[in-house]
Amino acid sequence: MTKERLYLFDTTLRDGAQTNGVDFSVEDKVLIADLLDQLGVDYVEGGYPGANPTDTRFFSERRTKRATFTAFGMTKRAGVSLSNDPGVNTLLASASDAICFVAKSWDYQVKVALGATEEENLDGIRQSVEAAIAAGKEALVDCEHFFDGYKANPAYALACARTAYDAGARWVVLCETNGGTLPEEVEAIVREVAKVIPGDHLGVHAHNDTEQAVANSLAAVRGGARQIQGTLNGIGERCGNANLTSIIPTLMLKPFYADRFEIGVSTESLRGLTALSHRFDEIVNRAPNRQAPYVGASAFATKAGIHASAIVKDPSTYEHVKPEQVGNHRRVLVSDQAGRSNLLAELARLGISVDKSDRRLDALLAEVKEREAVGYSYEGADASFELLARRTLGHVPDYFTVESFHVTVERRFNAIGKQISVSEAVVKLIVGGERLLTVEEGNGPVNALDRALRKDLGVYQDIIRDLELIDYKVRILNGGTEAVTRVLIETRDGTGDSWMTIGVSENVVDASFEALLDSIIYKLIRAGAKPVAA
Amino acid sequence: MTKERLYLFDTTLRDGAQTNGVDFSVEDKVLIADLLDQLGVDYVEGGYPGANPTDTRFFSERRTKRATFTAFGMTKRAGVSLSNDPGVNTLLASASDAICFVAKSWDYQVKVALGATEEENLDGIRQSVEAAIAAGKEALVDCEHFFDGYKANPAYALACARTAYDAGARWVVLCETNGGTLPEEVEAIVREVAKVIPGDHLGVHAHNDTEQAVANSLAAVRGGARQIQGTLNGIGERCGNANLTSIIPTLMLKPFYADRFEIGVSTESLRGLTALSHRFDEIVNRAPNRQAPYVGASAFATKAGIHASAIVKDPSTYEHVKPEQVGNHRRVLVSDQAGRSNLLAELARLGISVDKSDRRLDALLAEVKEREAVGYSYEGADASFELLARRTLGHVPDYFTVESFHVTVERRFNAIGKQISVSEAVVKLIVGGERLLTVEEGNGPVNALDRALRKDLGVYQDIIRDLELIDYKVRILNGGTEAVTRVLIETRDGTGDSWMTIGVSENVVDASFEALLDSIIYKLIRAGAKPVAA
Repeated sequence: MTKERLYLFDTTLRDGAQTNGVDFSVEDKVLIADLLDQLGVDYVEGGYPGANPTDTRFFSERRTKRATFTAFGMTKRAGVSLSNDPGVNTLLASASDAICFVAKSWDYQVKVALGATEEENLDGIRQSVEAAIAAGKEALVDCEHFFDGYKANPAYALACARTAYDAGARWVVLCETNGGTLPEEVEAIVREVAKVIPGDHLGVHAHNDTEQAVANSLAAVRGGARQIQGTLNGIGERCGNANLTSIIPTLMLKPFYADRFEIGVSTESLRGLTALSHRFDEIVNRAPNRQAPYVGASAFATKAGIHASAIVKDPSTYEHVKPEQVGNHRRVLVSDQAGRSNLLAELARLGISVDKSDRRLDALLAEVKEREAVGYSYEGADASFELLARRTLGHVPDYFTVESFHVTVERRFNAIGKQISVSEAVVKLIVGGERLLTVEEGNGPVNALDRALRKDLGVYQDIIRDLELIDYKVRILNGGTEAVTRVLIETRDGTGDSWMTIGVSENVVDASFEALLDSIIYKLIRAGAKPVAA
Repeated sequence: MTKERLYLFDTTLRDGAQTNGVDFSVEDKVLIADLLDQLGVDYVEGGYPGANPTDTRFFSERRTKRATFTAFGMTKRAGVSLSNDPGVNTLLASASDAICFVAKSWDYQVKVALGATEEENLDGIRQSVEAAIAAGKEALVDCEHFFDGYKANPAYALACARTAYDAGARWVVLCETNGGTLPEEVEAIVREVAKVIPGDHLGVHAHNDTEQAVANSLAAVRGGARQIQGTLNGIGERCGNANLTSIIPTLMLKPFYADRFEIGVSTESLRGLTALSHRFDEIVNRAPNRQAPYVGASAFATKAGIHASAIVKDPSTYEHVKPEQVGNHRRVLVSDQAGRSNLLAELARLGISVDKSDRRLDALLAEVKEREAVGYSYEGADASFELLARRTLGHVPDYFTVESFHVTVERRFNAIGKQISVSEAVVKLIVGGERLLTVEEGNGPVNALDRALRKDLGVYQDIIRDLELIDYKVRILNGGTEAVTRVLIETRDGTGDSWMTIGVSENVVDASFEALLDSIIYKLIRAGAKPVAA
């Protein structure tokens, strides 16, 4: 059977940007657009050029290689000619491959929100689509509040959709803007619309206000739609958009969909989904949802005690899909046996050979569990994990000792009465029996400490000379009075290789110091440095 | 039209207890059972007496007044007589009104997991149900893995369900144990089962592994089932159980269900749902899900300038239900996408009256956009926004001046050779012409600064005495060398009210200082403090 093509339209950077607490800088958007491109979505809706400076800058050049780079904006305003509509003109001038116009499709909204006539609205849709096409771009139309509009006045809602299609829109997207429509309603309504507009030109855009955005998206597909709009990790305003991180695996791994449809995501990309989901959370500094379907840390975590040993050999009896297919893995929560084999696999990957009956493995396993309980997270800190492993298995040389450090931040008025902030760090080390004292300033306490630590490491100075701190993340865990600060640092050396280290402490300076120290020692080990005799 | 009765079965205290990180004490269970009873669910499954000491103790007395107090456990083991099965006897002896037996209904599981014959399994179901009824209790049977079992061997799965029903079970619950069945499959299979067992004796128990537990539960109802099993806030192992907090409002507020069905929750209880959801999160120490449907802090929060102006005119244009019906409320957020009307609405909410043609509004709007471009984000920092607004519109008194501050973090070895970290802050203020110098220590630079700032504010000291920092978040924006640090602080005073302030700077100490200062000044304004003459 020939499979039909289903298209994925990602609006993480546009509708997702509406999420309370999420703000994308241009750099964030460039990075995320690239990740989405690699994932294999068909459209990346990058934002709303003209509405804010970040988006306008983002659309100054094309940001995807394969996916259709899409700009969002409003249809031509009523009472204004196309050439005099600055919003539309900005869209036309942007470096997008496509424009997705949001249009009213509910007569009540046309009257109350736009203050326009029904005919003016249809005309606005038509002219906008034609203008996009004339400018060499693909046109899409988001029919806002389509389902409520259809329930209130089906003829008008259909007229809006039809106008978009007739004007040449590649996709007419039926938007479930309130998030309150039920799946059975979505399926029925889409089925009706598909009698008038071919399903392969129909899309769905659902929100999660009844916790059924995923179900609504799939219901629309069953009703004939062939484009699904959603976001990574289901971000979006209110309760979020349809979660592509949940939808993609369902489309690819559930026979009901996988046998009939094909999407642009490869099985290899699918295996990278868990990592992508976590990476995205890091970029937007959101705590990962442990219970997220498919990709959550708990998604395949099961209490082994309940399952008989025979069943453990056949996971298909209790797992609905294989975790490896989405890049996740099975966690057996109460089982040293499974923990041990995970650990051995990881050590092998790092090139640390250890006999599987070595008792120090138990010590390492216990150490990792203990540390993760207080805030360490080794999945994102490979270099720190390697150091921990090497220390437990006895292989890390004593390169130098930190006798003490002292960091200061001072805000005061300078000689000409201008308020300034000065950060200074003093570090006292013992390298090969010699005391080395350094002082450095920086734009903050952590920056000062980093510079002081790497200013003079005695005999090792040449080795660490080309180190560069390229990323720095802070997260407060547990909140409130029991808070613990976790710092993740990414360091790069002259070869271009980079590694990540972690520090956990009551305060950010100590946590940062730990991560900085690990990062330096890791480099010394990599470089095969010989510790200097005391 | 007479409405049919739908029954809600809450398994927060049983299946919900499987959640990684959730542990209920007996006291917790007593409290939660009472809350569930007041909510109006029909069944409270309290746990598994005999499986662990907490549950055994919990079932020493009846813990609900109205809801059917239900104990969970396994059917009689094969090869053992009923009187010799300790598990069943514990259930029969417990202070429960009902017993919910979990039974295999997948032939493969009967063979491999139980090591029993198909007939023995059916016999176990029959005897268990009869024993419960003979003991004067209601009997329910959870048919584990029912949907997978039905797909593999429909005749046997049906036989298990039928056996339970024939033996007198009040409810036969079809469990979607893997969480991997799709709604359309659930509906179709339930419809088939309902030809053999009356729908008003059929229940559904879904898990959220494809993010469709809610959809699956409702699909089962459409297929004929009349009992839904789920948990508060959707807790449960892996990706969670069906979320009753999302299902209840949908059943009561969406005509598709509300017109046809009646449940045990009253409209008054529904209005208490948001508070109950938050209370439950507090009890189990879980961070509330801001994006939770209906009850989440963001569920009715809207950001875009496009929406906000229409909402101010008529909320039904954008809200799928009235937030008050579930005890929630509407939030209009301020962000760089804010238009003038957003701003006016927010200022009105803060009690700041400004004429909409006032030119200072443009200045404020521009200020907000500019600051947000460098890292400020006012939607999460209402108090800082209010201060910014009041400053731009000219209303903030000069309470005091910060002359300078000086923060130190030192790590060294103490007199007995133990490594310690000491953080100290010195703050120099001018209050009413008087210089006040304070010093304080803390567990980190920010904590020390916070304590020093609030140690002696002269005449204002009484006003700020009860302030408490209850949450602290740090985020590095832009990363790398151009990084900017954003700090969000939540402060609470003696009345229990709390507010959020923001600080943005090159370094975390300065950013924290800014947020701390705003938080203090905000309190002074709230308290109507009079600035002291210099």
